[in-house]
Amino acid sequence: MTGASEWAPPPQMKWWGWGDPERRVPLPNRALALIRDELGPAEPSQVVDLEQVAMPQPRPVGSEVIDAVNPASVLTSHDHRLRRAAGRGYPDLVRLRAGRLDAAPDAVVLPGSAERVARLLEVCSRQGIAVVPFGGGTSVVGGVEPISGRHAAVIALDTRRIRGIEIDRRSMTATFGAGLRAPDAEAALQAEGLTVGHFPQSFEYATIGGFAATRSVGQASSGYGRFDELTAAVRLVAPAGELQTLEASHTAAGPSLRELIVGSEGALGVITDVTVRARAAPKHRRYEGWMASNFAAGADVARELAQRDALPDIVRVSDEDETRLSLALSGSGGPSRALGGAYLALRRRRGGSLVVVGWEGEREAVERRRSAAGIVLRSAGCAALGTGPGRAWARSRFEAPYLRDELIDRGYLVETLETAHTWSRLDELYGGVRSAIAGSLQHLGTPPIVMCHVSHVYRDGASLYFTFIAKRRPNEELEQWAAAKRAAGRAILAAGGTITHHHAVGRDHAPYMAAEVGPLGIEILRALKERLDPAGVMNPGKLLPAE
Amino acid sequence: MTGASEWAPPPQMKWWGWGDPERRVPLPNRALALIRDELGPAEPSQVVDLEQVAMPQPRPVGSEVIDAVNPASVLTSHDHRLRRAAGRGYPDLVRLRAGRLDAAPDAVVLPGSAERVARLLEVCSRQGIAVVPFGGGTSVVGGVEPISGRHAAVIALDTRRIRGIEIDRRSMTATFGAGLRAPDAEAALQAEGLTVGHFPQSFEYATIGGFAATRSVGQASSGYGRFDELTAAVRLVAPAGELQTLEASHTAAGPSLRELIVGSEGALGVITDVTVRARAAPKHRRYEGWMASNFAAGADVARELAQRDALPDIVRVSDEDETRLSLALSGSGGPSRALGGAYLALRRRRGGSLVVVGWEGEREAVERRRSAAGIVLRSAGCAALGTGPGRAWARSRFEAPYLRDELIDRGYLVETLETAHTWSRLDELYGGVRSAIAGSLQHLGTPPIVMCHVSHVYRDGASLYFTFIAKRRPNEELEQWAAAKRAAGRAILAAGGTITHHHAVGRDHAPYMAAEVGPLGIEILRALKERLDPAGVMNPGKLLPAE
Repeated sequence: MTGASEWAPPPQMKWWGWGDPERRVPLPNRALALIRDELGPAEPSQVVDLEQVAMPQPRPVGSEVIDAVNPASVLTSHDHRLRRAAGRGYPDLVRLRAGRLDAAPDAVVLPGSAERVARLLEVCSRQGIAVVPFGGGTSVVGGVEPISGRHAAVIALDTRRIRGIEIDRRSMTATFGAGLRAPDAEAALQAEGLTVGHFPQSFEYATIGGFAATRSVGQASSGYGRFDELTAAVRLVAPAGELQTLEASHTAAGPSLRELIVGSEGALGVITDVTVRARAAPKHRRYEGWMASNFAAGADVARELAQRDALPDIVRVSDEDETRLSLALSGSGGPSRALGGAYLALRRRRGGSLVVVGWEGEREAVERRRSAAGIVLRSAGCAALGTGPGRAWARSRFEAPYLRDELIDRGYLVETLETAHTWSRLDELYGGVRSAIAGSLQHLGTPPIVMCHVSHVYRDGASLYFTFIAKRRPNEELEQWAAAKRAAGRAILAAGGTITHHHAVGRDHAPYMAAEVGPLGIEILRALKERLDPAGVMNPGKLLPAE
Repeated sequence: MTGASEWAPPPQMKWWGWGDPERRVPLPNRALALIRDELGPAEPSQVVDLEQVAMPQPRPVGSEVIDAVNPASVLTSHDHRLRRAAGRGYPDLVRLRAGRLDAAPDAVVLPGSAERVARLLEVCSRQGIAVVPFGGGTSVVGGVEPISGRHAAVIALDTRRIRGIEIDRRSMTATFGAGLRAPDAEAALQAEGLTVGHFPQSFEYATIGGFAATRSVGQASSGYGRFDELTAAVRLVAPAGELQTLEASHTAAGPSLRELIVGSEGALGVITDVTVRARAAPKHRRYEGWMASNFAAGADVARELAQRDALPDIVRVSDEDETRLSLALSGSGGPSRALGGAYLALRRRRGGSLVVVGWEGEREAVERRRSAAGIVLRSAGCAALGTGPGRAWARSRFEAPYLRDELIDRGYLVETLETAHTWSRLDELYGGVRSAIAGSLQHLGTPPIVMCHVSHVYRDGASLYFTFIAKRRPNEELEQWAAAKRAAGRAILAAGGTITHHHAVGRDHAPYMAAEVGPLGIEILRALKERLDPAGVMNPGKLLPAE
């Protein structure tokens, strides 16, 4: 059971990496040894001092912008600009740590209401100032990159002051201001015995508006639904006006405008309010581990669970390489003897695919569903590992980006990317992307460890989430990253998968959008943008490919 | 358990009403007596002979249209035109029976492939010929009305020859040609042990493309999902080109283009193929009845079922008036002694709200879920009526439109309309719409019976489905209908509900769209239409309000 304090947001994120500046998640020696052993020692990476970070001089944004909000809501200090100059993908971290930022917002603006946003967008459209909506700043695809495009200046529109909370207990919905951080939203719901159940890895810092703008998907998506499914209504303030979708549980009145705004990534306007669907907060949680003989068998059991209506709320199936590293990572003390045993067994036999499953809700329902899933897991030949691996997963569910900082410190490239497909083409997608990443980095002389897990499971398919680690190429980090990313993107397209299951498009995936949605799809999105943002000031360079 | 033959489509629909021309669903004497008793005797309505139906002379559509398909695929006979001249709403039936059609398609065109559709739309766009996509012709909102708009002619594009079937057993998906009738699609899936589980009242005649184009919702939506949720991918052929959405279980790549095409009602292009999500066909079904003390209590138990994760696959809660008439309707012979008893009990005490609940699946799961729902129903004070009312509902689940013909024969207006809202505003919506319909018909001297049920239940709200019956006003049927429909529409808007939960917009709801989606919403839809259908030939007068 969670206490209210569990959902209190941590302090301002460290400027050069992920999360609470006071918190370190130490990398277990065993894991580091494994990585050094396989990739060889790397040259550690330093972080420059905050004051040394070079950014372009701020261009003046003019008094009209200030009038649109108020003087105290326009910030131009080095620190304020720097903190909205990048997201949290690997290339962002490389540039921040090196203190070389080619772009930064000329000003940070913090409007306190949808009305202020409307006024601001009117001014920016008229004056040709690009606007980058900024929530938690957790994008890993360049979604908050301060690109001016053809405009004379660019501002970061930080939503943090738009943080209303209105709960409709009877309908189990809540309308949140877009800038509310996820832990604050959860804490407010929890006081009413409710939860949204949306816990992506970015949970601690992400905002409600960011979830909607990027089609976020949480770790317990099988149980609670994706954020698009949890979004009952949205309010968009666009340069061309305001759109509030109807909150009516469902409507068949034409194409879904809500589904147009969800996923619009700030390129059509600013999402200022989101009505979410909540449910009763779970009284009981149970997470546990199983071991499948290999990834193919593990993925197949996820399929069986989904297609036999026995899907746990959380399902995560790691491939052999991720299993190996996960076991090494979780071996660092704590109550993980079961896992330690599994690790030892695994070392002896090589291979094996760790399956973490979890259930949340009333104790009886959890036990019943657990038993139903157990039947499927056992008949597929999976071995039960008990709650150790489940607890380890739960403890560390938001820690991966902290560990990334540790690895980058030690000189390694660490990046993640994800895709999805139907079951009948998932193997092909897995094989294609894995070899592409491995091949591209091998080619550069830095052969990687490529790991993958299935973590969002549907009756018709699943997502694949890749993590890859390689020795960094000093001073060529960005080129090295781009080569791997490009190879992966091409492999995804070749296998017919989606370029993103839940990280969104941002800047990094924009070049793949034409392949994803087709030329007419691009025309449709451009028509929407032209209508909603005629001056083209909204989040330039994101979502849509360059014309 | 269903046999394959259960899903065989019935023959061509009778031209003046609903369903199999050879089939009549007799109106029980008790029900007719009740209606006559409350509304007074009415003047029976006749049906003219098919040959007597007056339609405008067909305008020539030119050889290019014929070349785009082939000569045998362009039909211009009286019979062919008449059968695509109207949907199946009350005003359609009034006009068909009276033999007075102000509009009819100038030709019926049956392209056999998406490529033929593309060629046809190119010709029609160039020559200014309006195109009305026509699937099962079951629209009750004027969705297939042959409106020429500003164009010189109008064709009905009948999709019946586009009927491919491709099943991906491993992913449990199937790609169907848009013109495939729902029973054919179900039969094909059933041969693989699968089902989509989508059974709206129009099931026997509706097409897969029609389901997608109108955001159809089936009777078992709580269990299987709405058709928008069951749609994995769509292919749209628009005058401006073709769009095939990615089939990848899920994508976060921007606004959902699939959700733009679903619900586009033929106004943006022709949906030619739909990939649906299937699941294992149920082995066991259980439908049963309960009685709540009144509609408020019945609706509240539906909310409890949803919010306590105990929702049956089918939930239908009738208000007192619908309960009364349902019991009278189902009293006609057959194994309904339990219901007969309930009917008698009800006659003694007045009031009472019939709750029909149903579960489908493995026997054990059905029994377990039934028991969980039973606890909620019982603690809410509902009385179990056994399987009688459930079986009666299942037997008659597609019969309401047949009964409508019987009532129209006897001189009564019968119409249905539906809406949805959140739980916290559902009572207000119910009261407002009910009084508005009653008041408007009372004002015309034909006080109605207004009935309502909740039939699609969500954690955050539910749909309301109204049926109203009144003595018709001879020769003023359309005005009488319009008055009631307008009053209901205004009441829905006043309560903030949606103008349609699952009947779609068509011609009848187009005037309410500006209120539903707001002025910017209308602009967005227009921008889409302009981009996809620059000549404005696609289904004029539907979906969007007149400019």
